[in-house]
Amino acid sequence: MKLRLLGIVTAASIAWLISTPRQTLAAIKTSVVDYKQGDTVLEGYLAYDDANSAPRPGVLIMHEWDGAGPYVQSRARQLAELGYVAFACDIYGKGVRPTTPQECGTDAGIYRNDRALTRARVEAGLDQLKTNKLVDPKRIAAIGYCFGGMCALELARSGADIAGVVVFHGSLDTPTPADAKNIKCPVLALQGGDDPHVNQDAVKAWEKEMKDADVNWQLVQYGGAVHGYTNPKNGSDTSRGVAYNAEADKRSWAAMKDFFGEIF
Amino acid sequence: MKLRLLGIVTAASIAWLISTPRQTLAAIKTSVVDYKQGDTVLEGYLAYDDANSAPRPGVLIMHEWDGAGPYVQSRARQLAELGYVAFACDIYGKGVRPTTPQECGTDAGIYRNDRALTRARVEAGLDQLKTNKLVDPKRIAAIGYCFGGMCALELARSGADIAGVVVFHGSLDTPTPADAKNIKCPVLALQGGDDPHVNQDAVKAWEKEMKDADVNWQLVQYGGAVHGYTNPKNGSDTSRGVAYNAEADKRSWAAMKDFFGEIF
Repeated sequence: MKLRLLGIVTAASIAWLISTPRQTLAAIKTSVVDYKQGDTVLEGYLAYDDANSAPRPGVLIMHEWDGAGPYVQSRARQLAELGYVAFACDIYGKGVRPTTPQECGTDAGIYRNDRALTRARVEAGLDQLKTNKLVDPKRIAAIGYCFGGMCALELARSGADIAGVVVFHGSLDTPTPADAKNIKCPVLALQGGDDPHVNQDAVKAWEKEMKDADVNWQLVQYGGAVHGYTNPKNGSDTSRGVAYNAEADKRSWAAMKDFFGEIF
Repeated sequence: MKLRLLGIVTAASIAWLISTPRQTLAAIKTSVVDYKQGDTVLEGYLAYDDANSAPRPGVLIMHEWDGAGPYVQSRARQLAELGYVAFACDIYGKGVRPTTPQECGTDAGIYRNDRALTRARVEAGLDQLKTNKLVDPKRIAAIGYCFGGMCALELARSGADIAGVVVFHGSLDTPTPADAKNIKCPVLALQGGDDPHVNQDAVKAWEKEMKDADVNWQLVQYGGAVHGYTNPKNGSDTSRGVAYNAEADKRSWAAMKDFFGEIF
C-alpha cells in the first residue's frame, strides 16, 4: 500500500510538472538596455526566461509610431513566456517618445522618408539582440507593429540574414520595392481587413512587390479589424480607423506562433 | 532502491501516456454511408475515433470538382485523428465520379448554376452527420476544397446553424451575394495567392460580399500557391494554375486547426 502510494504520488508530481504551462514555472527577467547606432543612444527592452541557459530563438520587436514604450515591452514579456529572447528595440532614440498624433507623425515621418536611417536603426537592434548569449543567432525573427511593421520589412528588404518577419497592421509601402529581391526569409503580414490607413491599395501594392520578387509571403486579413487592432489602448471606436479588436489580436498572435513553429 | 525504482517506472509510464500523440492511441473507424437528398442516393464517408464515446465536434467535408473520392476521405481520417467526427459528404450522387476535366466541369457546372440544389445536397450531408450520436450538434463546422469551398459557403449563406466554415482554394463567387447576411458563423478562406482560377478579382468580390454583410471573416493568401494547392495529386507544375504546394498545405491545415480551437 505504501509502495503503491509512493508510486502514485511520484507519478502525479511528474504529471503535474508535464502538464503545467511553461509560463507558470518561468522566471521572466527584463531589463532596459542602452545601446547605440552611430552616435545616437537608443533604449531598448530585453525579456527572457532565465530558468535555463539553453540557446534559443530571438525575436526583435519594433514599435508603433509612438516609440518604444509599455506596449512593445508587454509583447516582449509575452514572447519571453513563449521561450524566446525578446528585444523591443528603439528606432527613435533614447527619450524620444512622442505623445500627440502630430508628434508621432513627425517622428515616424523622419524614418518613413529616410529608409537608410531606418535600416541602420533596426540593424543596431538586431546586433544588440545577437550579443545576448542565450540567443541562437541562426534563429532570429523580426516583428513589428504599424510603423514597426515598416521597419521589420525594411530589415528584410536590406537582405538581413534572419529567419522570418511578421508584421501586425504594418505599414507596407516602400520607396524601393525592387529591394524585395534581397528578402531571404518568409514574411507574414497580419492586416486589418478594414484598415483605412493601410488600405487595400497598399495591400495590393505589397502583394505585387512580394510576387515580383518571388518572396515566400503570406497575407492574412481579419474582417472587421482596422489599424492598430492588437493594441488595447486604441479602444473600441473604429470610426477613426484605429481600434483594438480582441478577436483579431488573438487570431494574429496564434498565426505568429504557428509561423514561429515553422521557421524555428 | 526498489521503492524509488517503482516510482520512476510509474512516473515514466504516466509521462509516456501524456506525451504520446493522440493518434497513436486512436482507433479510427471508417465507413461508406449511403444517404439521400430527395430521391437521389448519395454516398458519403464517415471517420471517427471510437476509443471513447464522448460527444465531440463534427466536421462536414465537401469535395473538389471530381466528386467524393480518396482525397476527401483522407482528410476525413486526418480530422478523425484530431478527435472530430468527420463526414465527407457527396454532392453529385452515388456513382457520379467524373474523371476528365471536361466531365468534372460538366458536373460541377450543374451545381454552380443551381445553388438551391447545391444547398439541398449540402444540407442532406449535414443532416446525415447530425444523426451520428458521437456528434455534438452545436459544434459542427463545414470545410470545402475548390468546388467544395463553394458548397461550404452556400451552406453558410443559407443561414445554416453551424459553428464555422473553412474553405481551401475555394470557389468564392455566388449569384446571390446578398445572402451573406444570413451567415451566422465565422468564415475562414485559405486561398492561393497566385491562384489564376479563383483570381484576385474574385477574392476582392468575396471580401466585399463579406464586408457588406458584416460577416466574421478571415482571408489568408499564400504566396506562390495556385489553385488546388492542398492536393498532392495536382503535382508540382504550376503552369496550369493548379498544383500542390506542400508548404501552403501545411500552413493552411494549421490555420484550420487554430480556427477549430477557437470555434469549438
